[in-house]
Amino acid sequence: MDVLCRCINSALFLSHDMRRDVRVHLLLLGDPDPGIIVRFEGSSLKYLNPDERSSGSLIKKSLQKNISDIQVQSTPGVWIRKGNLEMLMEEFRDTGRNIFYLKEDEIDIRASAHLMDDGIFIFGDDMGVNEDEEKLISGYEPYVISLGPLSLHTDHCITLINNELDRLVVDK
Amino acid sequence: MDVLCRCINSALFLSHDMRRDVRVHLLLLGDPDPGIIVRFEGSSLKYLNPDERSSGSLIKKSLQKNISDIQVQSTPGVWIRKGNLEMLMEEFRDTGRNIFYLKEDEIDIRASAHLMDDGIFIFGDDMGVNEDEEKLISGYEPYVISLGPLSLHTDHCITLINNELDRLVVDK
Repeated sequence: MDVLCRCINSALFLSHDMRRDVRVHLLLLGDPDPGIIVRFEGSSLKYLNPDERSSGSLIKKSLQKNISDIQVQSTPGVWIRKGNLEMLMEEFRDTGRNIFYLKEDEIDIRASAHLMDDGIFIFGDDMGVNEDEEKLISGYEPYVISLGPLSLHTDHCITLINNELDRLVVDK
Repeated sequence: MDVLCRCINSALFLSHDMRRDVRVHLLLLGDPDPGIIVRFEGSSLKYLNPDERSSGSLIKKSLQKNISDIQVQSTPGVWIRKGNLEMLMEEFRDTGRNIFYLKEDEIDIRASAHLMDDGIFIFGDDMGVNEDEEKLISGYEPYVISLGPLSLHTDHCITLINNELDRLVVDK
């Protein structure tokens, strides 16, 4: 859960501001109830502070809702429903946007930056993505990219991608 | 304190590993006892986990020591002493290393990367650096660099700099 909280921070925070054009899907696969999607909508999000406790508290609040296939909003900008990786990947494909999957020793992000505008980025947590999940993701033919020569925490990866996207907007 | 804890995380953590070649100086200027330097030595650091609570706990432990001008080690890799910005800047200059100061709308980091090897990087917290402090820092003629078009949290800035340094090592 700590990992997810840090990812929320790096995806959504600017200094004294929030990234209103970012949407984060957390896919929770742990017991007791595997298969839950919590979505943070930067555009309408409220009550989020940069510390881990704050995002953790919003996630916990969402998990107290009656969770079904129909999404419900737990606090402004935080939505929860049942779901799995395949459902998410189908929805991502339906958007028509470029999908990116992060992996070590692949094409460097700086060589792919021109494809990233409005992109969707898939990350594993610190346990990584298992073989079946990676096979499923590969079926959607994502661009597979690397962020540098070393293996990084997921939240640090998100910071690097946001910076690359920020630079894109300026270059336009 | 939350800000400092997040900075410790982004400065020192790799996925399942630690950056053993990083040294972090935290300059604490808040009440009740302004003018304390807590130093994290990546090379010898122990008992640090990626969550904010963990770095917070190591900082708190260090603050329980008898703090004087002579540094003492509170836990492996964490040192504490009295000190101020001018003392730190003098010590940094004496190393002969390049000093970098982060500021918006300056020369982009990617244009300065070749100067960064073994560099020393000065960050303000989320309240920024005040006028007197900036004047003092400027006296040491740092390279003044930017990280991108938007204003970012200090911990996110550190992640971006570490990535740029990682890329330098590979380019060597």
